[in-house]
Amino acid sequence: MPQGVPTAVPEDGLTTRQRRNRPLLVVHTGEMKGKSTAAFGLALRGWNQGWSIGVFQFVKSAKWKVGEEEAFRALGRLHEQTGEGGPVEWHKMGTGWSWSRKAGTEENHAADAAEGWAEIKRRLAAEAHGLYVLDEFTYPMKWGWVDVADVVSTLAERPGHQHVIITGRDAHPDLVDAADLVTTMTKIKHPMDAGQKGQRGIEW
Amino acid sequence: MPQGVPTAVPEDGLTTRQRRNRPLLVVHTGEMKGKSTAAFGLALRGWNQGWSIGVFQFVKSAKWKVGEEEAFRALGRLHEQTGEGGPVEWHKMGTGWSWSRKAGTEENHAADAAEGWAEIKRRLAAEAHGLYVLDEFTYPMKWGWVDVADVVSTLAERPGHQHVIITGRDAHPDLVDAADLVTTMTKIKHPMDAGQKGQRGIEW
Repeated sequence: MPQGVPTAVPEDGLTTRQRRNRPLLVVHTGEMKGKSTAAFGLALRGWNQGWSIGVFQFVKSAKWKVGEEEAFRALGRLHEQTGEGGPVEWHKMGTGWSWSRKAGTEENHAADAAEGWAEIKRRLAAEAHGLYVLDEFTYPMKWGWVDVADVVSTLAERPGHQHVIITGRDAHPDLVDAADLVTTMTKIKHPMDAGQKGQRGIEW
Repeated sequence: MPQGVPTAVPEDGLTTRQRRNRPLLVVHTGEMKGKSTAAFGLALRGWNQGWSIGVFQFVKSAKWKVGEEEAFRALGRLHEQTGEGGPVEWHKMGTGWSWSRKAGTEENHAADAAEGWAEIKRRLAAEAHGLYVLDEFTYPMKWGWVDVADVVSTLAERPGHQHVIITGRDAHPDLVDAADLVTTMTKIKHPMDAGQKGQRGIEW
C-alpha cells in the first residue's frame, strides 16, 4: 500500500513529512499463529532500511529457537561484513537474558520479565534501536509481571524515532488504546484441527 | 506452538511422522495488512531449513520493491556464498516475469498472471521449491485471470513435499476449502485512520 490515502487529516500541526515518519506502536494480537511471524516480516523491512533491530522474546525457553532467529542472526552477520541492512540483536528470556550476568533458572519468569522490561526502558531512553520486537510481551503484561501503566506511558513518551511491535494474545486494552496499528489474527482453519502435527519450517 | 496437541487424530492411515511432515497449503487473507509480511516471515523459517524459496508476486508493479525482497535477496546471496539456509528466487509480474523473454507492458495483466501461474504449475510438477509464496494471488483468481478449478486441483495434487502460501483479500471459497491453514488478518486500528501516511520501513 505505497500510495495510502489517509481517510482524515488530523489538525496536529504536523507536516506530511513529519506525519509520514512518525514512529509507530504496533500490536499483533488474536488467537491465531502469524503474530510473531508478521512482526519478524516487518522487522525485515526495517533491517533493509538499515535500522538497528532489537528482538526481545519473552516467555519462550532459551532452548527454543525459531527459524527467524537464525535468519536474522545471518542478516546481522551480513551487516557486519558488508554494511548491508542494519545491525541485529536477538535476546531471549528463557534461562536468563544474554546481557545479565546471573544464571537464569527458567523458574522465576516474573523477575526475568521485569528485568527484560527494565532493559528495554533503558534502551528506549538511549534510542538504541530503530525497531523493537517485544515478542509475546502481552503475557507479562497480562500476568502482572510488568506494570501496564508503566509500559504504556514509557512507550507513549519514548523519544526519537523508534518503532515498537508487541505480539501476543489478549493484548491489554490500555495497550490497544495507546497503539497506532493493531491487527488481530483470526483462525479460519488450522491443520491441527484435522490431526496435523506441528512441523519443522512451519511451526518453528 | 512446538508441542501442539491435535484436537483429533484422523483415520488416514498416516504415521505421526508422515502427518507431521505433510506439506501445507496456507492462505493469508482478510482486509488488514500483514498477510504478505507474515508469509515472508514464514518463508524465513523455510529458508533456515535450507528449503528452496520461490516468491511470485502478482499484480504489484516491478518497480515496486518491498524491504523483504532486498532482505531475501541478501539471504539468497548468503546461501550461495556460505551454504547457510536455502536458495531464494524472487519473481515479480509487473513489467513481465523475469523468466520471460518478451518485454512486459504492465498493460496485459491478465495474460501475465496466466503466464505466471503456468510457470508455477511447471515448477510444482518439477518439485522446484520447498516453499512457494504466491503473493496477492487471490486477485488473479478473483478476476478470472486464472482458472480457479485448475488452481485448486493443481495444488491438491502437487507432488512431493512443497509448501504453498497464498496471500490476498477475498480468497476464493474453493481455495479456502482446499487449504490446510487459513488466517484472516483483521483491522482493529490503523494509523491511516488517524491521518498517518505510509512510511518507509513499515509500509514497504
